[in-house]
Amino acid sequence: MIDESENMSPSALRDGHRGSRNRLSGLFGPVVTTFRADEGLDLDAFGSNLRAHLAAGMDGILVTGSTGEAALVDDGERERLLAMARGVVPADRWLVAGVGAESTRQVVQRCRVAASIGVDAVLVVAPHYYGSQMTHAALSAHYLRVADESRIPVALYNIPRYMHFSLPPELVHELAAHENVIGMKDSSGDAALLDSYLEARSPTFAVLTGNGSGLAAAMASGADGGTLAVGLIATSLATGILNAARAGDMALASSIQARLSPVNSAIVAALGVPGIKAALEMVGLHGGPCRLPLLDLDSRGRETVRSVLAAAGLVEAGAPA
Amino acid sequence: MIDESENMSPSALRDGHRGSRNRLSGLFGPVVTTFRADEGLDLDAFGSNLRAHLAAGMDGILVTGSTGEAALVDDGERERLLAMARGVVPADRWLVAGVGAESTRQVVQRCRVAASIGVDAVLVVAPHYYGSQMTHAALSAHYLRVADESRIPVALYNIPRYMHFSLPPELVHELAAHENVIGMKDSSGDAALLDSYLEARSPTFAVLTGNGSGLAAAMASGADGGTLAVGLIATSLATGILNAARAGDMALASSIQARLSPVNSAIVAALGVPGIKAALEMVGLHGGPCRLPLLDLDSRGRETVRSVLAAAGLVEAGAPA
Amino acid sequence: MIDESENMSPSALRDGHRGSRNRLSGLFGPVVTTFRADEGLDLDAFGSNLRAHLAAGMDGILVTGSTGEAALVDDGERERLLAMARGVVPADRWLVAGVGAESTRQVVQRCRVAASIGVDAVLVVAPHYYGSQMTHAALSAHYLRVADESRIPVALYNIPRYMHFSLPPELVHELAAHENVIGMKDSSGDAALLDSYLEARSPTFAVLTGNGSGLAAAMASGADGGTLAVGLIATSLATGILNAARAGDMALASSIQARLSPVNSAIVAALGVPGIKAALEMVGLHGGPCRLPLLDLDSRGRETVRSVLAAAGLVEAGAPA
Amino acid sequence: MIDESENMSPSALRDGHRGSRNRLSGLFGPVVTTFRADEGLDLDAFGSNLRAHLAAGMDGILVTGSTGEAALVDDGERERLLAMARGVVPADRWLVAGVGAESTRQVVQRCRVAASIGVDAVLVVAPHYYGSQMTHAALSAHYLRVADESRIPVALYNIPRYMHFSLPPELVHELAAHENVIGMKDSSGDAALLDSYLEARSPTFAVLTGNGSGLAAAMASGADGGTLAVGLIATSLATGILNAARAGDMALASSIQARLSPVNSAIVAALGVPGIKAALEMVGLHGGPCRLPLLDLDSRGRETVRSVLAAAGLVEAGAPA
Repeated sequence: MIDESENMSPSALRDGHRGSRNRLSGLFGPVVTTFRADEGLDLDAFGSNLRAHLAAGMDGILVTGSTGEAALVDDGERERLLAMARGVVPADRWLVAGVGAESTRQVVQRCRVAASIGVDAVLVVAPHYYGSQMTHAALSAHYLRVADESRIPVALYNIPRYMHFSLPPELVHELAAHENVIGMKDSSGDAALLDSYLEARSPTFAVLTGNGSGLAAAMASGADGGTLAVGLIATSLATGILNAARAGDMALASSIQARLSPVNSAIVAALGVPGIKAALEMVGLHGGPCRLPLLDLDSRGRETVRSVLAAAGLVEAGAPA
Repeated sequence: MIDESENMSPSALRDGHRGSRNRLSGLFGPVVTTFRADEGLDLDAFGSNLRAHLAAGMDGILVTGSTGEAALVDDGERERLLAMARGVVPADRWLVAGVGAESTRQVVQRCRVAASIGVDAVLVVAPHYYGSQMTHAALSAHYLRVADESRIPVALYNIPRYMHFSLPPELVHELAAHENVIGMKDSSGDAALLDSYLEARSPTFAVLTGNGSGLAAAMASGADGGTLAVGLIATSLATGILNAARAGDMALASSIQARLSPVNSAIVAALGVPGIKAALEMVGLHGGPCRLPLLDLDSRGRETVRSVLAAAGLVEAGAPA
Repeated sequence: MIDESENMSPSALRDGHRGSRNRLSGLFGPVVTTFRADEGLDLDAFGSNLRAHLAAGMDGILVTGSTGEAALVDDGERERLLAMARGVVPADRWLVAGVGAESTRQVVQRCRVAASIGVDAVLVVAPHYYGSQMTHAALSAHYLRVADESRIPVALYNIPRYMHFSLPPELVHELAAHENVIGMKDSSGDAALLDSYLEARSPTFAVLTGNGSGLAAAMASGADGGTLAVGLIATSLATGILNAARAGDMALASSIQARLSPVNSAIVAALGVPGIKAALEMVGLHGGPCRLPLLDLDSRGRETVRSVLAAAGLVEAGAPA
Repeated sequence: MIDESENMSPSALRDGHRGSRNRLSGLFGPVVTTFRADEGLDLDAFGSNLRAHLAAGMDGILVTGSTGEAALVDDGERERLLAMARGVVPADRWLVAGVGAESTRQVVQRCRVAASIGVDAVLVVAPHYYGSQMTHAALSAHYLRVADESRIPVALYNIPRYMHFSLPPELVHELAAHENVIGMKDSSGDAALLDSYLEARSPTFAVLTGNGSGLAAAMASGADGGTLAVGLIATSLATGILNAARAGDMALASSIQARLSPVNSAIVAALGVPGIKAALEMVGLHGGPCRLPLLDLDSRGRETVRSVLAAAGLVEAGAPA
């Protein structure tokens, strides 16, 4: 699909590639990374989940996002996850890789490998360890280097919960002008901030929300879709919101959102990856253990998850936890 | 498929796994590793080839054998090739990984990763750099350690062309008794030696030939199949021999072999990987460049390949080289 | 020095090792990682700095702490830095490795390699990406697993500036009881918190401060020493404080601290690694560029550094920036 | 020492570097890689050996040659060995790294890391797995690419025992003209072949022998020195030969050779690395176990080693094996 000969310029390669798709839009699943009891990767379970998510109607798959325990996965593991995903995800769906890292050079290196695997785009969380040094100038230099060097398109990622700061809107506007920056994901849950990002939308820059409780509102404000952990558990609710919003039926979108939000709040926001993995198991997908230091949900947490899923009609009420 | 919980014994795991398949048998394709012009992996082309080989009727895929330029591929690359292959090869075909290395501990490590990817079996060429030290005792210690440690079944690999010695038949008999050693591949082209290996066949130990000019003869002697580079180019001829042999029609098998052998001699044996890659391109699959120090075939070599393929009816005569 | 035969129990190994030294105490230098202009490691400069720090009287060297841009250095680079350091640091000084990572298993793996290199102890910053999940139970499980698995002694590391939380004092007390946990470094700058950690001191658990503006006060409160970036620049001031405090002359300690604190505040605290690297160059050691996304100090920042160093008598006033 | 700024041309860098030394000459020790009982690296023992070899008068150290079990060591281990060696070997002795690999790109990558560690030169054994394809053109392309890409000088390595062919003399003459190829090591033991290599000697191309039984003869023929495993065990005999030869006293050189040759034949040639490691222990250095599939010497082998060493006066006769 990608003819990456040495004789083509990077921008030609990217244009050719980007021309083969529509913009980032729709529902993306930030899939979990499945582990065996010994903490090794369980690629069988991973592939099985991918097939189920695609069958349920996901427009794209995000491997090694925060929900994918990216911070706990090493480079070799990421590459195996991506390579298997590329074997499973068909060419007409998006395969996106989370490749954020503290050092610019490591992000560039991860982009290089992702491109060689045939990944369609990368999602890059801002470096944040040396947070007080992450000035506009530093973040700009970081993202511009990545965008210049990456053979595949780059999306920005704002998640203040983990970064402990937000991407400045003016930085987003600036980066949106780069030909290899195709969009962003905002998980802030801050409607005003999202609005300021949405102002950067253009024919070549899409904005996705990462807030499962705010999908309908985001669509109403003009977002292109969502990358939502809650969408892994309740895919039909999430796609229902997207379809309603696209059809202009915001009342329907809001009513579905009212069913989805409690699931997102009680499981994704309150319990994090351990809650999401427990929920996946309950809806018939693979969850399995987290990797330390994340602790698996205890029985009380599992009861909570089950009752929330039951209330949303995602599992039968009264089923064993 | 493999439930690799910590609480199951390795042998239970292996039995469970092995119980899910028949023995090693049929036609295995030692697929080439496809590179881009800059020598990086071309996983798109690799996946495309895999789908074509499977569609053509291969019983199994061998990744990073000698034909896969295994000696020129690093560990991370092998793992990405295997992970993508696992995404593409369905559960009812074999996915085998070449994992031979000079140090026992590196082979064990490669087996560990291959198992975590969901590979079905490993093929282990004997260490040979310190050839004069590769006594029966050393080889026995090597293979027993690997067979003990590997969570997935192990096949032995004899290729004197590269090893500069042969696996002693008595060693093969000894190792064939190990519960995790399920067979071997012999690429010696030495009929007497193959016969001595075939004596080790048992319900749990299969013997495959790696000599494309001797498939019919090997089947007549009782071999279980072949892992044949020539089978990548001329799949229907190779499967034709297998089917004829299984049906007891050795005359037919021999007549097909008479068409296959010149292709094997002139391309696989005489020209090696560069010849195989050129031939793959001519039959409509992906070949692409070799990795240095292997040199791509020059135009004269390509003419030879084309005329051999044309003589065997695999491409149209007179087509441009 | 370390006889790590398989037949010795881990605790025997550790006891033997720990028996060969006094407790963690004195001045430790959290050395910078030196890079070339192309961002590759500059090991020549690194080794040269180590020799200078040891000659200046450091009791120990900390490789890949936060000042060592640990978050920007990959595993292979850390291992080369440590191996070179082990070739340079004599057996009677401490060589400590910063090995913190988000996943417990990666910390354990880094401890394994550090031990094989002959490192004397590891310093482990708490995982913090999934901060809201880093409960007492999760942190306890993390550190206990590391302490159990590491063949070399473990020190805890509290740096709320980067972690966005502090290690709970009760957790520190609990972990201090583990035979393989030999101390901690506290960089909070919070005197009350340091006092609560100091209560955990014991014959087998030492407490070092990481706050260069609070060394005299920490020593007065009973700390065992400091791991101080400012000590790289102003070694004689830092050792002066330690010596005065040990001699009970707290008045002298405080007066030296009064000279050291402005250097720490204006360079280490305000300017971070870029400031420290600029200062190292001015005092005749190797600094060199930072790795992106850290930006090198601009000329105004360099002027500030020079005037602060001049005011402290560490460089001549009026020298060119 | 090496100022590797981006603004200097590679050749300027190399010239600057090479200008700081004399040509490859004298006695180089192809040091063993020391392992612990669990097969992990024992870097303490390694550093201790290095210091002893340097004290005994070695002109240079070769890390990860064939005697260093290079084929059994992974890239990360090589890098740690080199980094520690760089911490120990002073700037006025040579530190050479064996970096040969089957793929050109891997050799180039290893050169890159070796340069960043501050290694002085690399020794490159020819690729040989695909031996029948290793034509003059392929070998020439391989070495020229390596010599072009490496920031540090390159030496060729001919060892037919492991390569199963010899470097053609005309290829050596051709490569000797490259500005970044500074010499070769020949371990063939074939005097006529060595003579043909010696004809390629020039002010910028040195020839070392790797045959411990032929050092005096090689020096008489004009060689620049030797890289000799037997020199690790019997350093003073080897340096004695070199000194005598340099003084023109070939009779003395021959008489010392007569003492050295039996040690080389009976231990290095006949018993390989396990014999060398056993001998090192007997002369008071660190040997330790080999890595599988190399088997440690049995008691009978150890007796042989001891009696050979005793006969050469290298250990006291009658000492316990």
